[in-house]
Amino acid sequence: MSLSVGVDVGGTKIAAGVVDEKGAIIARTRRDTPSKDAPAIVEAIVSVTRELAAEHDVEIVGVGSAGFIDAGRSRVMFAPNLAWRDLPLRDQVAAATGLPVVVENDANAAAWAEFRFGAAEDVNDMVLLTIGTGVGGAVVLDGAMYRGANGIAGELGHLRIVPDGQYCGCGLRGCLEAYASGSALVRNARAAASGSAAFPGSPAMLLDMAGGRAEGITGPMVTEAAQKGDPLAVHLMAELGGWLGAAMGSLVSVFDPAVFVIGGGVADAGPLLLDPAEDAMRRSITGGTHRPHATVRLATLGNDAGIVGAADLART
Amino acid sequence: MSLSVGVDVGGTKIAAGVVDEKGAIIARTRRDTPSKDAPAIVEAIVSVTRELAAEHDVEIVGVGSAGFIDAGRSRVMFAPNLAWRDLPLRDQVAAATGLPVVVENDANAAAWAEFRFGAAEDVNDMVLLTIGTGVGGAVVLDGAMYRGANGIAGELGHLRIVPDGQYCGCGLRGCLEAYASGSALVRNARAAASGSAAFPGSPAMLLDMAGGRAEGITGPMVTEAAQKGDPLAVHLMAELGGWLGAAMGSLVSVFDPAVFVIGGGVADAGPLLLDPAEDAMRRSITGGTHRPHATVRLATLGNDAGIVGAADLART
Amino acid sequence: MSLSVGVDVGGTKIAAGVVDEKGAIIARTRRDTPSKDAPAIVEAIVSVTRELAAEHDVEIVGVGSAGFIDAGRSRVMFAPNLAWRDLPLRDQVAAATGLPVVVENDANAAAWAEFRFGAAEDVNDMVLLTIGTGVGGAVVLDGAMYRGANGIAGELGHLRIVPDGQYCGCGLRGCLEAYASGSALVRNARAAASGSAAFPGSPAMLLDMAGGRAEGITGPMVTEAAQKGDPLAVHLMAELGGWLGAAMGSLVSVFDPAVFVIGGGVADAGPLLLDPAEDAMRRSITGGTHRPHATVRLATLGNDAGIVGAADLART
Amino acid sequence: MSLSVGVDVGGTKIAAGVVDEKGAIIARTRRDTPSKDAPAIVEAIVSVTRELAAEHDVEIVGVGSAGFIDAGRSRVMFAPNLAWRDLPLRDQVAAATGLPVVVENDANAAAWAEFRFGAAEDVNDMVLLTIGTGVGGAVVLDGAMYRGANGIAGELGHLRIVPDGQYCGCGLRGCLEAYASGSALVRNARAAASGSAAFPGSPAMLLDMAGGRAEGITGPMVTEAAQKGDPLAVHLMAELGGWLGAAMGSLVSVFDPAVFVIGGGVADAGPLLLDPAEDAMRRSITGGTHRPHATVRLATLGNDAGIVGAADLART
Repeated sequence: MSLSVGVDVGGTKIAAGVVDEKGAIIARTRRDTPSKDAPAIVEAIVSVTRELAAEHDVEIVGVGSAGFIDAGRSRVMFAPNLAWRDLPLRDQVAAATGLPVVVENDANAAAWAEFRFGAAEDVNDMVLLTIGTGVGGAVVLDGAMYRGANGIAGELGHLRIVPDGQYCGCGLRGCLEAYASGSALVRNARAAASGSAAFPGSPAMLLDMAGGRAEGITGPMVTEAAQKGDPLAVHLMAELGGWLGAAMGSLVSVFDPAVFVIGGGVADAGPLLLDPAEDAMRRSITGGTHRPHATVRLATLGNDAGIVGAADLART
Repeated sequence: MSLSVGVDVGGTKIAAGVVDEKGAIIARTRRDTPSKDAPAIVEAIVSVTRELAAEHDVEIVGVGSAGFIDAGRSRVMFAPNLAWRDLPLRDQVAAATGLPVVVENDANAAAWAEFRFGAAEDVNDMVLLTIGTGVGGAVVLDGAMYRGANGIAGELGHLRIVPDGQYCGCGLRGCLEAYASGSALVRNARAAASGSAAFPGSPAMLLDMAGGRAEGITGPMVTEAAQKGDPLAVHLMAELGGWLGAAMGSLVSVFDPAVFVIGGGVADAGPLLLDPAEDAMRRSITGGTHRPHATVRLATLGNDAGIVGAADLART
Repeated sequence: MSLSVGVDVGGTKIAAGVVDEKGAIIARTRRDTPSKDAPAIVEAIVSVTRELAAEHDVEIVGVGSAGFIDAGRSRVMFAPNLAWRDLPLRDQVAAATGLPVVVENDANAAAWAEFRFGAAEDVNDMVLLTIGTGVGGAVVLDGAMYRGANGIAGELGHLRIVPDGQYCGCGLRGCLEAYASGSALVRNARAAASGSAAFPGSPAMLLDMAGGRAEGITGPMVTEAAQKGDPLAVHLMAELGGWLGAAMGSLVSVFDPAVFVIGGGVADAGPLLLDPAEDAMRRSITGGTHRPHATVRLATLGNDAGIVGAADLART
Repeated sequence: MSLSVGVDVGGTKIAAGVVDEKGAIIARTRRDTPSKDAPAIVEAIVSVTRELAAEHDVEIVGVGSAGFIDAGRSRVMFAPNLAWRDLPLRDQVAAATGLPVVVENDANAAAWAEFRFGAAEDVNDMVLLTIGTGVGGAVVLDGAMYRGANGIAGELGHLRIVPDGQYCGCGLRGCLEAYASGSALVRNARAAASGSAAFPGSPAMLLDMAGGRAEGITGPMVTEAAQKGDPLAVHLMAELGGWLGAAMGSLVSVFDPAVFVIGGGVADAGPLLLDPAEDAMRRSITGGTHRPHATVRLATLGNDAGIVGAADLART
């Protein structure tokens, strides 16, 4: 059976695994990500690959990384969090390991894993949205990974949803990511806890969780408080879901997907996020009463999606 | 050489032609569209097809129509302007003509024509935006027409660009079409001519063209006035271009296309529309300094695109 | 006891009364408004005044009219619904009746009546918002009617609340009136009944009230349906209230009033409108936890406010 | 001739002067503001007052301070930058100096100075907008300082101009201050210099002024670059002016003022700020072609306005 290595290069750790044709991870390893040290990150990728290839008969290596990957799946054009600019990652890892290598955007890898082995394995057209620190996106269209003319398609977190809206980390204003990311959730929660009148309910529970300091509030705290029924946290999650759903309504007009798969840490909130998102989506679809509707599902592969998708995409 | 018939079903006329493999129209005919009389419109489609098939050895017929077409390219699910609901158009035309028939969305047909024989024939990934009464859209991705899970992808005029913005003809608020269509252009021009303070310059030239009545102003008048340098008309066209370009910036994040092709009657304004659109697009692309940019081109096939694209798509 | 005549010039009727110093109307009369016939409207004002003055010992006449009234309270500069442009109304009515006359904006008259004898008689600083076909406004500040440098202050319906938002009847975009007037309410209700996906709930009750035709839906129907608990109507009223309340939050920053008085036909919805408005207002006040809050009250004088206020203001 | 002391309590210094009835400052002194040490700031106010009163025959003291001042002009309810909460400032300073004291909001003081002795001395109705770190506001209506029911009127920087817009320092979203303050100007300039595609032109001049670091860019640098014709700086200033002018259009509907006076550090840009602001204002006035327009003027008293206004208001 054909085996490949998938490497998921994240901001804090590099996780890798040997993946079989059914998407099962049969061996794993990991390293901490050397902080913003571009060559050291490459070295760590090589290291996990060698470790796994020493024990398994591996055909090919797929490396999933944040950032803009070129259409040839070989170079990282721009990955600000990893301090990479125009890096020939494929060739460097291939030269060091002696294996064929394919580089892929990390959201693409996760989408492919959900499409092949997870929440969207029954459809041909799916959109992945990952709600983590930022908002990632990727699309599988007509059963194939869609990468665009230059390899950078699917940056769905940068749909502009509010003209002259809040600044996004990318420097633009009003991007979906500035409204529907975990960072936006935390920013809003901290504003509420600092006395902003803009939110209903009391910040008492959130402040209590955070040791009394607004700046100590984290995304998982908001999720936990919402699951306990705290009105402010429920509102914050629903506000995020409302923005997400309105953007999904636009994406229905664009892609007409069969399924949206929602992943990322904030998706742990489950129906507290997805129900408001679906409600907003339904109310944002043009001609909505005359067409089949996309379904919305939670991602099922969790943190493994990056490894599995990178490994499997490398074979395609 | 293989010949096919393309039929372009518009709100005012039904135009048809025999199209060869190089996209040339070697014979033409047309009828007026029977107003909102669903069976009569089908009859007219049959009539133009028979007329052309009588003189040419036709293999297949492609019918391009506004509205939602199903993924099987056989039924019109919803076409409000033609009074069609869930119409088995393919089978009706095939039964009456004895020829194989494919039904396609009209914007898809036009996009395909530009991709195969027109402004985008050198690329694999292109987005068409037609700026007419409404805003139509269609996408060719990885060299194939992209239709979505249910056949309704590419409704790009219904991207929501302004939350709680102006009503769109589709019943939603803030759609691109409500800001960047010919209808929006005319609405703004008439508002300016009726005394709205919201626009710079004087409505004198536009009113003069329209015989003194704000309600008489049309889209071509705005284009003509802009081409003569009228400051109000130039502003109106640039405002439309600004909205279009901001949406194109979002579509770059979504599709990463090689080319945008801009068609429709308003595109006759040329650089008066496209320059502001490109400027706004450039300022709306995430990570714009680290990636290749999409180019923006005018459609080259004009009104023939619908016939040519429907005919050629039927062969695919 | 000093008596004065108040005349309330509306779009459909001209109502007049003799008002005593305590704000009581001791005699009344009315005429239909001659449609857009400027001199005939003046004639009707003269006629009701003569009729009342024949029976009562009247000192002065106050005429309340929609439109821009000059700072000298004598001329109507602009009243589009009455077809008046720069009309010396005070002098015309005075010459014809032999009585001293003062002209006042109709919203000013209503605000003054509520301030002197109605919902705001216990405070010095109040803001009136009337939610009728349009959104009217007027302010009493430090116990005095505030008219501005040119007589046109308090046009609160034309606060811009949404950049590039919906067109207002005034030709601008995004005015409060385009979101929080009875006209906006009806427009939204009709859109929902015509199939817009943008609203929750079913239009069945509203359509039933309107005889099955979306275009037959009126504002009072929406109010009645909301009072019966219809989810769509409740939502429509709450959406209006949300816009109103957000604008009231801005007006708190501007005026720091003791009281908002809400009048006009849509205010008949009572808490269905006011509760969402107050909630939104509370969430839109800068430094809201460090300041006294304005209270929100329904107008108490109903349709008499125009007569009473015009009569009483004429004495000041 | 009656003399009074005016004290202007700023975030970095406390400036005071003896002011005569004609608004002339005949003696001055100052202290650094003790950083966020509430009692020490009071002590410094007492100190400057004693120093001036020792040399001049002073009748009364006016203290101008940022924050919410109560309607009795005696207590500071909330002044976050000075760490004051519900401080009986009037009584503390009066007890320590033996002089009658009046406390006033600092923007009110500046507005009064411009109204009495500066840019608006010829009118009865004026609106002051100060564009500094934040956006301050104050209004003189019918020739009197307008303070509102609770002393907090005129917080014009917190008009909401963009729903769901950028966060304001006050915790709300979309306030004018979040778009038209010096802080907003600097934030935008730094974003442009950090690679945001959202702005036209090159950040080269601004970066050069700032020693190559985006974070080193200051407001005065943007003004200087704009005055040298740098396209990016000119754009940034015009964008700020556009927001300011649109808000001024709304304020015309609200107040119908004769004059807007624009002060604060950013106003040093003069026509580079005011021309775009006036243009936007003209395009944002309801019924603009049927009414007199407010004029827009630069403040003329500069940093002295706070001292002069506080001193003069104390006498009223």
